[in-house]
Order: sequence, then C-alpha cells, then structure tokens
Amino acid sequence: MSGVWGNKIKYSIFGESHGNGIGIVIDGLEPGIELDLDAISKEMERRAPGKNKLSTSRNEKDQFEILSGVFQDKTTGAPLCAIIRNSNQHSKDYSKTKDLIRPGHADYTGRIKYNDFNDYRGGGHFSGRITAPLVFAGAVAKQALLKKGIIIGSHIYSIKNIKDDKFDLASIKEDSLKELTQMDFPVIRSEKSSDMKDEILKAREEQDSVGGIIECAAINLPCGIGSPYFDSIESSLSHLLFSIPAVKGVEFGLGFEITELFGSKANDEYYIEDDVINTYTNNNGGVLGGITNGMPLVFRVAIKPTPSIAKSQRTVDMVKRENANIEVHGRHDPCIVQRAIPVVEAVTAMGILEHI
Amino acid sequence: MSGVWGNKIKYSIFGESHGNGIGIVIDGLEPGIELDLDAISKEMERRAPGKNKLSTSRNEKDQFEILSGVFQDKTTGAPLCAIIRNSNQHSKDYSKTKDLIRPGHADYTGRIKYNDFNDYRGGGHFSGRITAPLVFAGAVAKQALLKKGIIIGSHIYSIKNIKDDKFDLASIKEDSLKELTQMDFPVIRSEKSSDMKDEILKAREEQDSVGGIIECAAINLPCGIGSPYFDSIESSLSHLLFSIPAVKGVEFGLGFEITELFGSKANDEYYIEDDVINTYTNNNGGVLGGITNGMPLVFRVAIKPTPSIAKSQRTVDMVKRENANIEVHGRHDPCIVQRAIPVVEAVTAMGILEHI
Amino acid sequence: MSGVWGNKIKYSIFGESHGNGIGIVIDGLEPGIELDLDAISKEMERRAPGKNKLSTSRNEKDQFEILSGVFQDKTTGAPLCAIIRNSNQHSKDYSKTKDLIRPGHADYTGRIKYNDFNDYRGGGHFSGRITAPLVFAGAVAKQALLKKGIIIGSHIYSIKNIKDDKFDLASIKEDSLKELTQMDFPVIRSEKSSDMKDEILKAREEQDSVGGIIECAAINLPCGIGSPYFDSIESSLSHLLFSIPAVKGVEFGLGFEITELFGSKANDEYYIEDDVINTYTNNNGGVLGGITNGMPLVFRVAIKPTPSIAKSQRTVDMVKRENANIEVHGRHDPCIVQRAIPVVEAVTAMGILEHI
Amino acid sequence: MSGVWGNKIKYSIFGESHGNGIGIVIDGLEPGIELDLDAISKEMERRAPGKNKLSTSRNEKDQFEILSGVFQDKTTGAPLCAIIRNSNQHSKDYSKTKDLIRPGHADYTGRIKYNDFNDYRGGGHFSGRITAPLVFAGAVAKQALLKKGIIIGSHIYSIKNIKDDKFDLASIKEDSLKELTQMDFPVIRSEKSSDMKDEILKAREEQDSVGGIIECAAINLPCGIGSPYFDSIESSLSHLLFSIPAVKGVEFGLGFEITELFGSKANDEYYIEDDVINTYTNNNGGVLGGITNGMPLVFRVAIKPTPSIAKSQRTVDMVKRENANIEVHGRHDPCIVQRAIPVVEAVTAMGILEHI
Repeated sequence: MSGVWGNKIKYSIFGESHGNGIGIVIDGLEPGIELDLDAISKEMERRAPGKNKLSTSRNEKDQFEILSGVFQDKTTGAPLCAIIRNSNQHSKDYSKTKDLIRPGHADYTGRIKYNDFNDYRGGGHFSGRITAPLVFAGAVAKQALLKKGIIIGSHIYSIKNIKDDKFDLASIKEDSLKELTQMDFPVIRSEKSSDMKDEILKAREEQDSVGGIIECAAINLPCGIGSPYFDSIESSLSHLLFSIPAVKGVEFGLGFEITELFGSKANDEYYIEDDVINTYTNNNGGVLGGITNGMPLVFRVAIKPTPSIAKSQRTVDMVKRENANIEVHGRHDPCIVQRAIPVVEAVTAMGILEHI
Repeated sequence: MSGVWGNKIKYSIFGESHGNGIGIVIDGLEPGIELDLDAISKEMERRAPGKNKLSTSRNEKDQFEILSGVFQDKTTGAPLCAIIRNSNQHSKDYSKTKDLIRPGHADYTGRIKYNDFNDYRGGGHFSGRITAPLVFAGAVAKQALLKKGIIIGSHIYSIKNIKDDKFDLASIKEDSLKELTQMDFPVIRSEKSSDMKDEILKAREEQDSVGGIIECAAINLPCGIGSPYFDSIESSLSHLLFSIPAVKGVEFGLGFEITELFGSKANDEYYIEDDVINTYTNNNGGVLGGITNGMPLVFRVAIKPTPSIAKSQRTVDMVKRENANIEVHGRHDPCIVQRAIPVVEAVTAMGILEHI
Repeated sequence: MSGVWGNKIKYSIFGESHGNGIGIVIDGLEPGIELDLDAISKEMERRAPGKNKLSTSRNEKDQFEILSGVFQDKTTGAPLCAIIRNSNQHSKDYSKTKDLIRPGHADYTGRIKYNDFNDYRGGGHFSGRITAPLVFAGAVAKQALLKKGIIIGSHIYSIKNIKDDKFDLASIKEDSLKELTQMDFPVIRSEKSSDMKDEILKAREEQDSVGGIIECAAINLPCGIGSPYFDSIESSLSHLLFSIPAVKGVEFGLGFEITELFGSKANDEYYIEDDVINTYTNNNGGVLGGITNGMPLVFRVAIKPTPSIAKSQRTVDMVKRENANIEVHGRHDPCIVQRAIPVVEAVTAMGILEHI
Repeated sequence: MSGVWGNKIKYSIFGESHGNGIGIVIDGLEPGIELDLDAISKEMERRAPGKNKLSTSRNEKDQFEILSGVFQDKTTGAPLCAIIRNSNQHSKDYSKTKDLIRPGHADYTGRIKYNDFNDYRGGGHFSGRITAPLVFAGAVAKQALLKKGIIIGSHIYSIKNIKDDKFDLASIKEDSLKELTQMDFPVIRSEKSSDMKDEILKAREEQDSVGGIIECAAINLPCGIGSPYFDSIESSLSHLLFSIPAVKGVEFGLGFEITELFGSKANDEYYIEDDVINTYTNNNGGVLGGITNGMPLVFRVAIKPTPSIAKSQRTVDMVKRENANIEVHGRHDPCIVQRAIPVVEAVTAMGILEHI
C-alpha cells in the first residue's frame, strides 16, 4: 500500500504542498529516449493554475528540475528523479483552523490514518498539487508512447448538467485528439464551451463549486496488451485514475449504459478488411478480457465538485470535540475538471506504458 | 502484470476451464484463523450455475480441496492452496469452431496475446469459471473480516432497464445486508425481483442476454484504512473489480451522479455526537482521500450482457482470414448478474483485508 | 515477505510435508514453451530420496501433476500449477515429541512466528520436502533457458574437510557441465567421490551428519543482464539461495578469497579477439556492477550438516518450560549436499530467467 | 528488476555521480518517528571520504536536504525524499578515456546494458557515491529500530591477510557494539588496527589497492521475524548486501566454516533459564528456517579490493575495438572497507526494519 506504482516502470511520488519540494522518481525507463523538455513544460502548464477565473488565482510555476537519469537530453536507463520546489505558499497561519476538518477533503481521514502527524498545511500530501509530478511522469510516458505512434487525448464531456457530445467510440481521429490537447478548455462541440464556463463562473460567484466528467481516448494501441487476472488494462487504468483526488467513477466504452442493452447489441461484431480485423462498434471501449483489441481505448472519469468552498458548512472541531462551522477561504478552484485533464492523461500514459 | 494480486496477502490464481483443475494460493494469511468450511461451500454455491432457468444448466459442483495451509481447521500461516477439479466438461469438439472468434469474448485478444498457444476450450483462462477460486478466496477473506465485525452485502440494482432502489448511502443496516446475502436473487424492493427475472427469461427465449448493475456495501469498516497515492481503497477495489470478466464500470458513493451537484451539496458535512464523528450524508461512499471515513463503503458495478448468445452474429474466421457468421450454442447464461454477486463481494473482501 | 518470488515470472510455493499436497504456481511464462516432461521427472529424481545409503530411506516418488497452464504439451501463457501429493507420511504420533524443539531446525522459530498454529508434523512448511516444487519450477526454467543456449551445472566442492577441485573460473566447458548433471554424486576429480561418500557413511554410523559446499556455474549467459540497485544478479541469486533450508553462505567468483588479493590481481583484465571482448581471469565470477559480463557465472553455496541426528542433544520442552534431551529418530539424511544440488540449480535457473 | 526495494517500506534510490543530485525516497515509514538529524549527519560522515590517507582525498560533504515526509522534526507518514547535491565533480574531460573500460568496474557491463546511453562520468549510477543515499536511509531505519532497542554494529574482520578476532557469536555486548560505531577504524583487537592501516598505505604507495571482510551484528532482535520461502532474513539481507558495489560474498553465523563440522557440533542446543529460551552456541548466526531465534544476528561480507588503481592494466578500447592499456588516475581509495561499514550497516537496518 504505497506511493510507488508499477512493475516494469516504477513511479515513486513524494511531496507535501507546503514542504520543501515535491517530485517523482521514475525507475525502469528504457535508455536512449530523447526527452523534449519543452513538451514536458507545456504539459505542466496545462495543469498549472492561475491562468483565468475558471481556476484558483494561485500562481504556481511548477518549474521542474531533473536530478538524475538524463544525460545529453536522453534517458540513461538509471532512475529519473524530477523535483519541483514549493515556492508560492501563503504564510497564513494554518494552525488556527487546522482542527476544523473540511467537508469533502481528506482532513479527517488523514488525521486518523497518520495519527495527527501528517503535514496539515494546505492538505499536505493529499493536496491536488501533488498531481504535478504525475503530470511530469505522464509527459515522459507520453513521449515514450509517441515513439510507438500512440496518442492520448480527452475532452470535457460535462460540467454539472451541461453535456458535450461523446466520442464516436469506433472512430476517433488522430487529428481531433491532437486538436483537443491544444485547447485550454477542450470540448467536441465548441458551442458547449461557453455554457460550461458560465456554469463554473456562476458557481464561483456563489462561493460554490462544480464538477464534471472527462472522456479520454488512446488510439493506435497495439492489439494484445493487458492481462486477464489481475492486471487487465481496465484494472491498471482504474487503479491509477482512482488515485487522482476527486475521482468517483470510471467506466470503459459504453460503461454503465451497456447494462441497458441486449447482448446482441452490446457485442462488438467483427469484420475483416484488407486482412485487418476490426469491430463495427466499440461498445467495449477497446478492451476485451482485459486485453486491447486494437480499437480506440475510451473511458470516462467522474470528477466531483471541488470540496473547498467559501460557503459556510457544518463541521467538527477535532480538538474541542464539538460541532462547528467552517468557511474555507483562500484562492480556490470553482472547478478542477479542466485542470484534471492532463492528470487523467498522464496516468493513462503511465498505465499504458506499463503494459507495452 | 500477472495472476498474482496483493501485497500483505498475495493471491495467485490459476486454471483453465477445460484443464485438470483450477484454484488459488493465498499467501500471508494470519495463522490461527478458524475456517468455517460450510460457509465457504455456501459461498461457492451462490456462484455455482445450474440452479434454475436464469442461468446455464451446466451443473458444476465446484467442490474444493484444500492442499495446504490449514491444520486442525485453522490457518497455519503458511500458504493456503485450494483446488477445484474440472469435471463436467462436454467432450464436444471445440477445434471445429475455434477459429471463429466470438464477439464480446476474449477469443480474439487472447489469441493475439498468447500467440495462439492459449487453451481455447471453453474460454480457457478467460472463462468465467475461473471466478470460482476467487469466490473461495473471498470466502476466506470474509471470515477474517467478520472477526473484526466487517460485513459485506449487495443487491441487484438493475437488470437491463428494471431498477431496484439504491442503498440509503448514509444508513445501511447490518440486518438488511445479512438478509440480502441469504437471497438467491437479492433486491431491496422485493416486487422488482419478478420483473427482473421476467426480463432475463425473455432474453433467454430470444436467444439473447441481458446485463445489469450490482450495488455492494461494506459496513463497520474502521476509519483510516487506504492510502492517498497509489493505493486508495477505491484504487484497490476497482483494480480487482475490473479483473472480473464483464465489468465495464465502477463508481463509489453517488458516483457519476455527484458531477451534477454543487460542491455545497456534494460535500458530506460532519457532526459529532457522543464523541463519535459522522457525516450527515454519504455522497463519497465512505472514502475521502482514498481512506475510509467510517461511513458505509458503497459502490456500483456495471456488468455487461453475457456475450455468449445463440443468435447469429457477424465474425471473422482467424485462419481462413475471411468474414463469417457464428451462433454460440451450448448451455449459456442469459444473465450473469446474479451469479456475479458473490464474485464482486469476494474481491471486495480481498481488497479490504489487504488494507487492514 | 512471502511465499511468492519474482517479478516478470512469479513463483508461488505452497505445501506442508504432511498436508494433502505441495506445489507451485508459475505465473508469467512465455506461451509456447514446449515442455519435456521426462526431463522434468529426471530433475525431480535427482532430488528424490531413497536411492542409497547416502540419504534417507524414505521413498517419495514426487510424482507431479500439472493442473493448468499447459495445453498440447506447450505452455499456454496462463499460470502453470503443478502439485505433488503427500503419500508416504508415517502415521507416527508427532504430537508426542512436538514440544521438544529440535536443535538446528526451525521448530522453535516457526512456533514463535506462527503462534503455535503451524503444522508441526515433519517440519511442516519448513520441511526440505518443500524444495520438490522448486525443483519442478527450476526444471521448467531450465528448459526455457536451454532454448537460449544457457546451461547450468554444479559439483560437490566439499563434504566436511574433503575437497574437490574448484571450477577453472575463466574456462568452463559445456560438456563438463552436462556430464556433471548426469552424475549421481558429481565431482570434478572422480577419486574424491569415494572419500566423500565414506565421510557421509561414517557420519551415518555415528548417528551424526555432515555438510559441504556446492559450486555451481551457468554458462552462455548473454552480457548485460542484471541491475546495479537493487537487483544485481548476485542479489537475486543469493536471495533465492538463502531461501533453501540449510544454506549459510554464498560467494561469487573468488568470493571471500578475493579479499586477500591486491586490486591489480583481483581485477579481471580485458582483451579483444575476433571482435569479442573477454577477460583473462574470472575472479568476479561473471558479474560486474551486478550485471553479467559474458564470462561463466560461478558461485559457491555452504550447506550446513543435516540438523536431524539420532545422537542425544540438549533441548527445551516448550510446554513444560524445562530443559530436556532429544534424539531425533526416523529416516534421516546423513548428508543432504548431494540432494541439494538440483535445488541450487533450480533456483539459479529461476533467478537467471527473471533477468532475461 | 529495479532501483526500488522493499515491501512494507519501499526505498527508491536515484542518482549519478556527475548529475545534478542523488537521493532516495523512503515510502511507508510509520508517522511520528522523531528524526535526530545530527545522528543522520554523523552516519553520513562515517562514509564520507577525504578524512585521511586511507581513503580518497575527494572532499564530498554529502549534505542532505529533506524535501518531504518530515514535519516538525517527525515523520509524517507520507514518502520521505532526501537529496544530496553533486558539487565536487572535477571538470576533467571524461570523454577522453570513456572508451577504455576499467577492469573490475561496471564500465563494460553498464555500456552493454544501457546501450551506451548511461552517464559514464565517474561511474554514473554505478558510482560508490550512490551509497550515500543508502546511508541516509539506513540512518533513518536505525532510528526506527533503536526505538525498539535494536542495535547494529560492525568491525573490520580483515584487511587482506591481516585478521582481527571474530565476534563471540553467542555473546555480543551492547556496549562493545556501540563502541565500535564510535571508532573511525573499528576493530576488536585494537593492536590489529595499525597493521591493517599499514597494509592499506603500502597498497596506496604501490598504486594498488586492498580489500577485506566486514563482520556485522544486530542484537536485541525479537524472535520470530523472517519467513521460510522466499523471504528469509538471510535472503533479504544478502539481497541488499549484494547490491553494494564490491561485495562478493556473504555468510551467516559460522558461514562456510559450518560445512566442516559434524551436525552434532553445528546444531545450536537449547536451554531454558528464568523461562527464557536460548542456545548455548550461535553457529547459525541468529537465524533458523529464515527466522530470527533471538540470538545475535551475525554475518560477514567480503569486499573486493578497489578496482580503481593507477597501475597500468590491460583493457580494450570499445570504439576502436582494439587492445589497449589504462592507468586509472585520480583521487582513488586504496581501500574502501572502512568506508563500506556504514553502508553495510545501513542496508542491514533497512532489511531488518522490513521484517518487523
């Protein structure tokens, strides 16, 4: 049970939001992968806050430093460690409110698990900030995958009740995916974008927050990766996705909807053309028996509304052992769905790379 | 990437549906757990087929033999191996149809992954039959959990479009859970049961199949188990759940629905009473920051319609490399949701035990 | 901490000497390895007792049954489980002497670790009998290695004070290794064989036992396998070797002797011939920085004298909590060195296969 | 196969001698361990070079910085990352000699393994410098063990042919161990110290090097830790010890010598006194069946002579593919045995902590 994930490639994450630094060690990378540091920085920026009113005004640069594992711009094969300094912490006195456990956060469970020794400042190791090293690792994994032609992209399927189209499961184009990764607020039907943003800004004004659903796809995967027990592609990906704070649901292909179909409609029938085997539909989201079938890998991830809200909420003072109220002030995200996208893609890249 | 799962307790699953036997090795069990073999047999029977028209007429007894790790009815602390012989295989000539890949099954992906060396008879290692050893392991894990007061139960939330009530997330009673585990076809609103069964029998008549959703709960969990990265309770459970054949979605608490709420509604507010801290609601399904908060752990699992159907489907002949049609005859389940329940509960028990 | 070893290939061992059966699950084998079952049986016989006066007169056939993972004589890629039934257990009443802890055995440590719940009959899970599944697994691993030209062989370097020659580290011939594997009592200088056997028989007469040193070599290994931290070839092999009951020392190349040389003598100097790089000497036993250099991999393993002896020894009655004497009667091995050879080779094959 | 070790506590090591920095992530530490940073620094100094003529004149301070996992001087329970900057690298042009593979080093094997992409400067990831993070981790582990009363100490048993006394296996005093840890050049018989140092200085003058044997002990271990298969205490410790560069042999208790005894002499007989069970002798070095028996855990480690010597040696130019000569100039250690002691103790602490 731990901060280390992976078998062929092992990722060791570390850091607390108000400690000296956060980072990740990536062990087991093939030697000789040429790293595009600009592309990594760009991924980091996708997650970084402070860009507009849709997210917190905290301005964290998330500048990384590579300590090891890279020589002459290529991976050496030895463990790669990247660190990010914590710099923009407010000096506010966390100790004042530290006994008021914030609803929807890990304050309460963290205190119990770590016997009150956890670093409570800014969420500590539970902070969303710790996803920055994940994005770094994912950016490296993406570059390793790109060499094999594999491309990952996603869009915001919904913000609260506002819904975008879903991907056309059986036919996702490389160009569309690439386009989505260039967008600040990626949606398929562009007209949905402003509705969604309005919803977020409205929540912000009301000192509240909203959540949504991210739909992610990976294409050009080889057929035959993954395992039946216990490491299906779905197992690996869901394992990683449920590590991301705020994720409450994961579904592949048609997901929960597939339960409403007859088998004869749910099954993806096969055909062969130019000696290539494909399915007409892709209700299984590119995975059968835990193993990729060469169709686009598609899944959806439910992101709950940001728990930090300025509205008054009922809570408990852990030390005085009495009921209390809390208003979580500070620079909070009215919605983290758009910032979660590169994180979702990052763990997807890590999960796929593990199986290749 | 493998047939071994777990860290503190390691489960090694093995078997193919038409080989000599299937089974599991459980390594790391505490010594001195008194095993109730009857209770284990009863769990095995919950999964076993052949009981009525809702499932296949194959009559597999799934009688297990314990080879090691138990002495004088108690675990020794050494690895426990249990095996189940394969006995009721039809001698039908699988080789005739083996090149026609069945839609919705792992025939195609398995062939690619294992280079045509996999045992194709009856699905081989991909067969649903391999979940029998999981149920065995889960029954052992349940007994270890029961000693700590932890109880797991579930019901069929839906079959196709017919829906039962959901659990009342914040208040699930021990008695209701126990009652559900005694039912052949567990639902909360008993009147839904016959509608659901009708739906299954109708599919059976039409040589088709249906799926559904299982809702599962574990109560009396201690607060503070699970981890932020990478081994949240949700990560461990979803990892195991997505190993079960036919699972296409997993969601905790309100799941995907939580994305439609404001943060102020989604957050579970705290109160203290008699020095015990609780939440008013349980939208997070008992988990915050990957760690249990003492509320009922609740999740839903989407089970797709059984892929084996007698209706004609389009497919490909892998050897002739040409389009073909297939009718999957034999003794198939028109629905496996009710048989999947003990499997879902089994991996839940395994997943929780790992964290305790 | 467990009965499972390996990463790419995972071995799960199970069994107690007087339970229903013992065995191993091998997970992660490449599909399509053609298994020579006779060769496996022959390996099992090398370890099996009852052949002559040098070992116990117990007659265990160690007949294995493969339950899964093999189809049409080839590995399927799914987990391979092999079991061996326990049949020749004496019905003697172990419960009489069970509270007298045998010196040199794991009786005392096992009781403490497993809280008195371990199966004490015949050593239970600590029994040397549990090495039989290891030999099975090693035989499979050897066949996988043989396909790559890798050959493993060993000889008895010493029995008590009687010493054979050592391997010529820099030049070990394939034919000599193969020859050694055909011998019942493998030594390099054949005249040493009778001296060693005499030593064993003398110990037997005196109701005592002797130990010795096994020297093992693997040749035709590719250069470049193994890792610096933490999985050097030496780490993996010593990890496995120290799992074998009775092993008390492991050394590679010159081993402890290398500490008495100057660096200028200890270093293996390089030369190139026909574009192939080699070293003149092989003091490092084929490993530098934890990684193979293409020279023969050579190591020595110290096997302590069999702890079971009929001579009276001082011990403690664990229940009465008082001093006592014990004479361990029964059919014991006056020496297990010769029977340990296939076990040493088996884990060597497993360890090497893991790195390839 | 990797730079991550451990199960309950996972250590991820990283770094190359001439990169930006080296370090380690320790994941799984109990929350609330009060860290004595001075004691850690002192351990780092024991390994640090530049103190006298017995080791290299390189002056590396090995100042560590803790990035995460510690709050208010106590462990938080989240991963602890410590880094050490590389500062004292000579700017010499490594590229000139990089194609001449140094005998006894990992230059050749590293190049093959990493396809020429490894950082060759100063040995890169193979550098002895990477043991500094191990000493850090060991110092933390030692503090965790000390809270349970467990003490680790060692002495130089031999330098080349000069031999100290061995520990009295059955009776090692806490005070003697503590005294040894305070000594710069720890030996039991103080008069041996100058002979050994003379041997080292003589080798230094002759542009050569020497090796030796370290004997290490851990006392006050609880009885009952470790496992039969595959994680015996001996397996875990030897695994870690053989990860340390230059280690070529490991033996427990009497080690190889035990093979020359009769079983009746080798067995450690039991007695009970004041209801405490002990053995008269400790030939097994505190371990039976892979599990501690409460007696001192004692083992010996063979350290080969430093491979870097200024004497001319025969080698090969990897690019020109021709025979050549090399003189390894620079600030080398004529002996690393004394500097290896804290490293041996460090991994011992890590190995023991894993089992507790």
